[in-house]
Amino acid sequence: MSTFQYTVAELAERFGLAFQGDGQRVIDGVGTLAGAGPSQLSFLSNGKYGAQLTGSRAGVVVLREENLGDCPTAALIAKDPYVAYARIAALFERLPAAPAGIHASAVVSPAARVAPGASIGPCCVVEEGAVIEDGAVLGPHCIVGAGCTVGAQSRLVARVTLVTRVTLGKRVLVHPGAVIGSDGFGLAFDRDHWIKLPQLGGVRIGDDCEIGANTTIDRGALEDTVLEEDVRLDNQIQIAHNVHVGAHTAMAGCAAVAGSAKIGRYCMIGGNAGVLGHLELADRVTITAKSLVTHSIREPGEYSSGVPLQESRLWRRNAARFKHLDEYVRRLSALEKDSNNE
Amino acid sequence: MSTFQYTVAELAERFGLAFQGDGQRVIDGVGTLAGAGPSQLSFLSNGKYGAQLTGSRAGVVVLREENLGDCPTAALIAKDPYVAYARIAALFERLPAAPAGIHASAVVSPAARVAPGASIGPCCVVEEGAVIEDGAVLGPHCIVGAGCTVGAQSRLVARVTLVTRVTLGKRVLVHPGAVIGSDGFGLAFDRDHWIKLPQLGGVRIGDDCEIGANTTIDRGALEDTVLEEDVRLDNQIQIAHNVHVGAHTAMAGCAAVAGSAKIGRYCMIGGNAGVLGHLELADRVTITAKSLVTHSIREPGEYSSGVPLQESRLWRRNAARFKHLDEYVRRLSALEKDSNNE
Amino acid sequence: MSTFQYTVAELAERFGLAFQGDGQRVIDGVGTLAGAGPSQLSFLSNGKYGAQLTGSRAGVVVLREENLGDCPTAALIAKDPYVAYARIAALFERLPAAPAGIHASAVVSPAARVAPGASIGPCCVVEEGAVIEDGAVLGPHCIVGAGCTVGAQSRLVARVTLVTRVTLGKRVLVHPGAVIGSDGFGLAFDRDHWIKLPQLGGVRIGDDCEIGANTTIDRGALEDTVLEEDVRLDNQIQIAHNVHVGAHTAMAGCAAVAGSAKIGRYCMIGGNAGVLGHLELADRVTITAKSLVTHSIREPGEYSSGVPLQESRLWRRNAARFKHLDEYVRRLSALEKDSNNE
Repeated sequence: MSTFQYTVAELAERFGLAFQGDGQRVIDGVGTLAGAGPSQLSFLSNGKYGAQLTGSRAGVVVLREENLGDCPTAALIAKDPYVAYARIAALFERLPAAPAGIHASAVVSPAARVAPGASIGPCCVVEEGAVIEDGAVLGPHCIVGAGCTVGAQSRLVARVTLVTRVTLGKRVLVHPGAVIGSDGFGLAFDRDHWIKLPQLGGVRIGDDCEIGANTTIDRGALEDTVLEEDVRLDNQIQIAHNVHVGAHTAMAGCAAVAGSAKIGRYCMIGGNAGVLGHLELADRVTITAKSLVTHSIREPGEYSSGVPLQESRLWRRNAARFKHLDEYVRRLSALEKDSNNE
Repeated sequence: MSTFQYTVAELAERFGLAFQGDGQRVIDGVGTLAGAGPSQLSFLSNGKYGAQLTGSRAGVVVLREENLGDCPTAALIAKDPYVAYARIAALFERLPAAPAGIHASAVVSPAARVAPGASIGPCCVVEEGAVIEDGAVLGPHCIVGAGCTVGAQSRLVARVTLVTRVTLGKRVLVHPGAVIGSDGFGLAFDRDHWIKLPQLGGVRIGDDCEIGANTTIDRGALEDTVLEEDVRLDNQIQIAHNVHVGAHTAMAGCAAVAGSAKIGRYCMIGGNAGVLGHLELADRVTITAKSLVTHSIREPGEYSSGVPLQESRLWRRNAARFKHLDEYVRRLSALEKDSNNE
Repeated sequence: MSTFQYTVAELAERFGLAFQGDGQRVIDGVGTLAGAGPSQLSFLSNGKYGAQLTGSRAGVVVLREENLGDCPTAALIAKDPYVAYARIAALFERLPAAPAGIHASAVVSPAARVAPGASIGPCCVVEEGAVIEDGAVLGPHCIVGAGCTVGAQSRLVARVTLVTRVTLGKRVLVHPGAVIGSDGFGLAFDRDHWIKLPQLGGVRIGDDCEIGANTTIDRGALEDTVLEEDVRLDNQIQIAHNVHVGAHTAMAGCAAVAGSAKIGRYCMIGGNAGVLGHLELADRVTITAKSLVTHSIREPGEYSSGVPLQESRLWRRNAARFKHLDEYVRRLSALEKDSNNE
């Protein structure tokens, strides 16, 4: 069949899944359980959406065996329907064309090295000593500074800035507005004014990392800021100089990590959570949204800070009391003592 | 009179206001009560600044009838002086010239459609299938990706990126550094590594919306991320995939909304406030600054979280107690029980 | 010696420091105590790293006199080793070449004034009435809007946007993605929709300021947003319209200041801390990370808000109790009263 059309049987074979129902049905896209039509594939992963299955008009649904009975249409059976869906859906993604070669409007230093199979888009700037490896794609308005490397098959979607001494591994995906390799925030206070510390390190990003829109990653002061492989950063994240992020760690939007913190592997950092500088987080630590990590964490597990949302009228009373919490506890202890002495 | 000069009487007539004092006075600009000179207009809206009225050197002041007695100069009388001032002040704004046509340095796909009355600034990139409607203005360095539409009279100030499948309504104003239509943060965890979910939806922005500098709005995973009309987003806001924001809702700087949250109409989201994913907020909900919304809100009203600022020395004692709050309450209950048993 | 090589004795003389050990040793770079080799300089400032001194292979170490005894190599003696190191390290920074003149791909208005010694990089846009003073450097993709001034020796690293009416002093350093002079977020609510207030002021940035990557600074509504000299802003900071920041104040990443707040001199604002609008902070106020300032602060000192991080399992119990804190305190007071009446 054509590029964006597959029968149910073809999908089953390609992804090693069993199927039930009409194997010859043609699928040309994906959709939600509620929204997909007869030529689209959907999935059921979260039990919460189970009620939508019975009424779905999708052509085929990826689901667990236990949900087969409720499926009104063809089914592809997967142990993890979300993972199987992610793989299948990639077939239907139409990435923008990225012809090999350098756009006429790009400014590429003669002292840069651009592989013949790389694609350099409109208005890109590639400075001296930069290396763009084979199959790498620079969308419009990307800047690759002096001495930076963009690994094979990596893609800078548009308007990405690699400042200096930044090395991206293979298949790294960077979204618009990201700035990698900017100066770390290093200052020494000299009696009555600030002196800037030169930021002489770089940034190393491992294979298969993803960096969100308008995310910033500073280069190291002396050694490098490092993201190991398969680190996934959402939008507007701030990674300060000399941070080290372990492989497979994911951070949600607006998280921030201060200088020289060391985050383990397989960590999950929630939205707008913060990690103070010079701390260490063990592997498999989860931090919930908007929490602030103020000390190192040695044990895997989930950690939080913050207080719950309330109507402001009620919240104000409780918040006002917080300012005297220590006093209340002392009063409680005094009462207990009295009570014991009676 | 000339473009940027109006008499007090002309302003009164144009905006349907009564005036008092010298109607022939010429006004050529606006200023604060404290700073405005004799050819400038000022306003008194907030009672807090009432004391500044009596000493003001402004040529004319927009104010409520009740403040007329304290006004040492000409006055324009309005029920809502702030709204009246906003309308009048717009007369004195000098927007940059934006000549119709495509700047020589712009890169516009032959498969894009640019209305003759649109203005495409220096170094802009307009990709195939993009539509730029009449009167739309793209300042320097804007990127309009494949299949995006910029509605009539919309203005991308400078360096705005519309990635793909983004539709802006009419009179939308987008500030520099904003990224709209970037990939949502969709990942499935496959035993020991992440798999990316293709982000196949788009973004729809209604008429009269305003999007702040360096704000990011991701496109939907399957369906669209939506902002209804007259939504006002300040700078550095993060809107995740499949979020739906109701008409006339405003968010202050650094607010963030996680995936698939549904925000009502006429909501006010404070600075750096957060809304977790898959929640619903009713119409007319206000969230105060830095609060985190962790559950759906069904009733209009104002909601908060957080604790008050204190000197760190005092705060530390109270914060340390918070870690044992549950224990203290149990001890309190035990004492009460003892007390009742006596 | 050559540009990037100095003997220990040369460094001592140039920076007015005493030295001990081999003055003829040649130094060509800097490194950490643990990582520096025999031709590199390192420093010991923080006692925490003292143990690394004895094993260091560095060619020379900048340290306090009291640490001389533990130094296994040459030493430069400084009262404040961190400040001395900052000065010395600057010798080894290789800034990108910035030849005077205007790159062929830049778009410079004939009504702009560019000093002959300024450097305008690829794809820059300089609009009418803009002034670029002598020795100023605009890296690639910078936009200097109408009526903006870039002071002598200032450097816009890359992709910086000055929107309109922005004045940068001398030696200002601005990192990629920063947006200065965008519209303030000024809205008036007119019965059922928003009206925008034109933002007619500008931004004034003093000498020696540094502005981080993707930081945003809005221009004033009527008067100017102001940063006095030597203000240091990290990445992703949001400064709203009409904010005034005193000289030598530093803010860490993701801090945010709302409209018309007035921050004193020598303040330190922690990462992701927030300051509400129309407040005043005295000189030498420190705000710890993620705190929210909700009232003016008249006294120097350190201030905080927030609660400590805990395992989520424990945190949840305490957080749930917070919602009833006021009630508990009332119950405590009642018990005390009972106890006193007995």
